[in-house]
Amino acid sequence: MKNVMDVSKNSIIFERCSIRNFSEKEILRSQIEDIITAGMQAPSARNERPWEFLVITSEEGKEKIASIGPQASCCENAPAIILALANLSRIPNGSPWWIQDMSACIENMLLRTVEIGMGGVWLGIYPRESRVEIIREKFFLKDNIVPVAAVPIGYPLEKRTRKNVVQTERISWEEQA
Amino acid sequence: MKNVMDVSKNSIIFERCSIRNFSEKEILRSQIEDIITAGMQAPSARNERPWEFLVITSEEGKEKIASIGPQASCCENAPAIILALANLSRIPNGSPWWIQDMSACIENMLLRTVEIGMGGVWLGIYPRESRVEIIREKFFLKDNIVPVAAVPIGYPLEKRTRKNVVQTERISWEEQA
Repeated sequence: MKNVMDVSKNSIIFERCSIRNFSEKEILRSQIEDIITAGMQAPSARNERPWEFLVITSEEGKEKIASIGPQASCCENAPAIILALANLSRIPNGSPWWIQDMSACIENMLLRTVEIGMGGVWLGIYPRESRVEIIREKFFLKDNIVPVAAVPIGYPLEKRTRKNVVQTERISWEEQA
Repeated sequence: MKNVMDVSKNSIIFERCSIRNFSEKEILRSQIEDIITAGMQAPSARNERPWEFLVITSEEGKEKIASIGPQASCCENAPAIILALANLSRIPNGSPWWIQDMSACIENMLLRTVEIGMGGVWLGIYPRESRVEIIREKFFLKDNIVPVAAVPIGYPLEKRTRKNVVQTERISWEEQA
């Protein structure tokens, strides 16, 4: 199978990579709103739109998030962290799609950071119960609010060049099945 | 809170909308590969990369997917359908992140369709057990393969203009908490 990467890729999708080291350059509240608004354009099953967001910018708040584990230590040097929350009260009884909706929302936010010259990383919280409990307790979240991920954002400290992953062996074509 | 939409939005994220009616214009195999490759650039917890893909282009195959329910009838007029599959054999025991990885992958694919002038829609399969069983049976998927979503793709029959959703009331700021 031919290598698909000979297609030109001038695209945020192919530029995005996980950014964990941030410069001290300030980010604006309007930029944070812009990134979250991009998240809210994600598709949502039956238009349930379960998402809510808590923006953390204080040192104390960043330390709270960093306490979920070593992988979250990057939060301490980020100018802001977006907590992506699912409000289960917005979801009809038994509807099973909310985690997929939330994930599309988070990916949109990460892509938007790239589009405006910034970067970020997806730190999973739900369904790790210990992480959910830490965040719920430290930020006084109600029982109907599920913290799904923390997304520290800011200007990358270094320019990183992404190596795109091409694994055409992951693709099957019906006619070959 | 000010309306964040006064920021300029020349962006696939803000252009994407669900497309269910497709023109008869042919799409190329290289375009399908390109869209799937975009999916494979999604972030993945611990780089597990659970995704695999089955591309459906036959009338018989499209009818099989349409049989999961009325919301999938749009598959019959799509030139191709990408089945997004999670291969659980790629996931370490108990790792709970695969559905989020798959969702980011699917969103990337939908955004890439917009970027190359096409469109598509996210039809959820997992975790609806009845849909999973239909797809698993009709496409002879092994037990370790979970069909997560069907994504019919093609050129939109009509130009749709997306209404962006701005719900700044969904955003809380730490300092106000």
